[in-house]
Amino acid sequence: MNKKRILKKDTMWIYGKHATKAALLNPKREILKFILLESNKNFFQEISGTSKNTNIPSPEFVDKNYFQTLFGKEATHQGCAVLVKKLEEIFLEELLRNKNDNRPFIFLDQVADPQNIGSILRAAAVFGARAVVITEDHSPEITPALAKAASGALESIPIIRVINLVHSINILKKHGFWSVGLDERSEKKLDEVDLREKFVFIIGNEGSGLRRLSKEACDFIVQLPGPGIFTTLNAAQAATVTLYESSKQRMKGN
Amino acid sequence: MNKKRILKKDTMWIYGKHATKAALLNPKREILKFILLESNKNFFQEISGTSKNTNIPSPEFVDKNYFQTLFGKEATHQGCAVLVKKLEEIFLEELLRNKNDNRPFIFLDQVADPQNIGSILRAAAVFGARAVVITEDHSPEITPALAKAASGALESIPIIRVINLVHSINILKKHGFWSVGLDERSEKKLDEVDLREKFVFIIGNEGSGLRRLSKEACDFIVQLPGPGIFTTLNAAQAATVTLYESSKQRMKGN
Repeated sequence: MNKKRILKKDTMWIYGKHATKAALLNPKREILKFILLESNKNFFQEISGTSKNTNIPSPEFVDKNYFQTLFGKEATHQGCAVLVKKLEEIFLEELLRNKNDNRPFIFLDQVADPQNIGSILRAAAVFGARAVVITEDHSPEITPALAKAASGALESIPIIRVINLVHSINILKKHGFWSVGLDERSEKKLDEVDLREKFVFIIGNEGSGLRRLSKEACDFIVQLPGPGIFTTLNAAQAATVTLYESSKQRMKGN
Repeated sequence: MNKKRILKKDTMWIYGKHATKAALLNPKREILKFILLESNKNFFQEISGTSKNTNIPSPEFVDKNYFQTLFGKEATHQGCAVLVKKLEEIFLEELLRNKNDNRPFIFLDQVADPQNIGSILRAAAVFGARAVVITEDHSPEITPALAKAASGALESIPIIRVINLVHSINILKKHGFWSVGLDERSEKKLDEVDLREKFVFIIGNEGSGLRRLSKEACDFIVQLPGPGIFTTLNAAQAATVTLYESSKQRMKGN
């Protein structure tokens, strides 16, 4: 374990209504503090009313300045936040023990934008992916802004940090996964691949795409099928469409 | 025409490599100024080398401070920008004159996030939509950040501002379009609808979804099909998946 990892804080703030609610309702999440604007009283009553989880702490009512001091002026905190313990780190090998789980993995090859990673977590939750795997270096920290963009999906989709993406792709391949990289210059189209087997999808960085070694670890390189002359989507959109297509094929296929 | 409209500036800055390149290569775009970091010399040579458009102006080389003064510290300008005249405003009625065009329209019901609108323009370009229609009120201006998020798609996909969304939906319906609203609480799934006819898709605001009157103007209300227990995507993701599904059906169908 490197020094950086040891020094990392084990708590974080989560803000925004969806993200805060999901954290409060997640039995695995340890809540250290729950702050709320007085005007959001209903938000607490709604959650505690519908939930069987009796461990939801009472909120501490604070004013707007309190939020602003914590998160800055630009944060879209929506007047609610929780200070939480970070979820226990999950390793790839643990998830692979369940051999009957056919859901795909999403690998992000140095995707840098926290908003995009948050959106990808949402798509993973909606379309049934198993985990989002990111690189230890050149990936952002799990910040409140990322959690907000994930809109609650951070509670259900594990984020796994790995040192070497190619090494991890190869581990999955040994476990019977096919690896598919997204690249707009490929001739092959995503929906030409039968996606009902086990798959790992690899999405490149917003600017430079997949790195050479990541590409070489792919069984298929595909682009998204579309009639447009303008052929790029951002990383979150590409991942969302990929997971949608994969989910559709799996739902039809069994 | 209201006063606000008259007072609006008719020029804007576009920054970022993809967006700047697309603007320079768009013959309909009047370029007033083209600024570049010295280190981006290749960017200009590449564009002028591959383009038949001989009207690309020579860049003015400026330093980082110049960019920072213009766009602030946070802007991801990537060291290139153009000052342009805004494209001529397009009206819904003009586009409807071409009756053989089956591509869908995307209507945004008060989607507020410029990043999302930019991403939706990208999806519209990739998956072949005709235009993005937004409301005059409660929609953001076309800012450099929106143009950057659109990554060039602002040059090919018209943004149409309308006063009354429902009125405009009804105009399209009279022209033979079906209206489909996205709502995660609907029972009906998007892919249960035969999307090969003429369609207008209506995407709601990030927080509150479709407004009641917008919903009432819809022939169908659908949700996106997915196995996940967590059923929301952001506006850009929902629009992207919708346009993808629509594009797939149209490509297969003819």
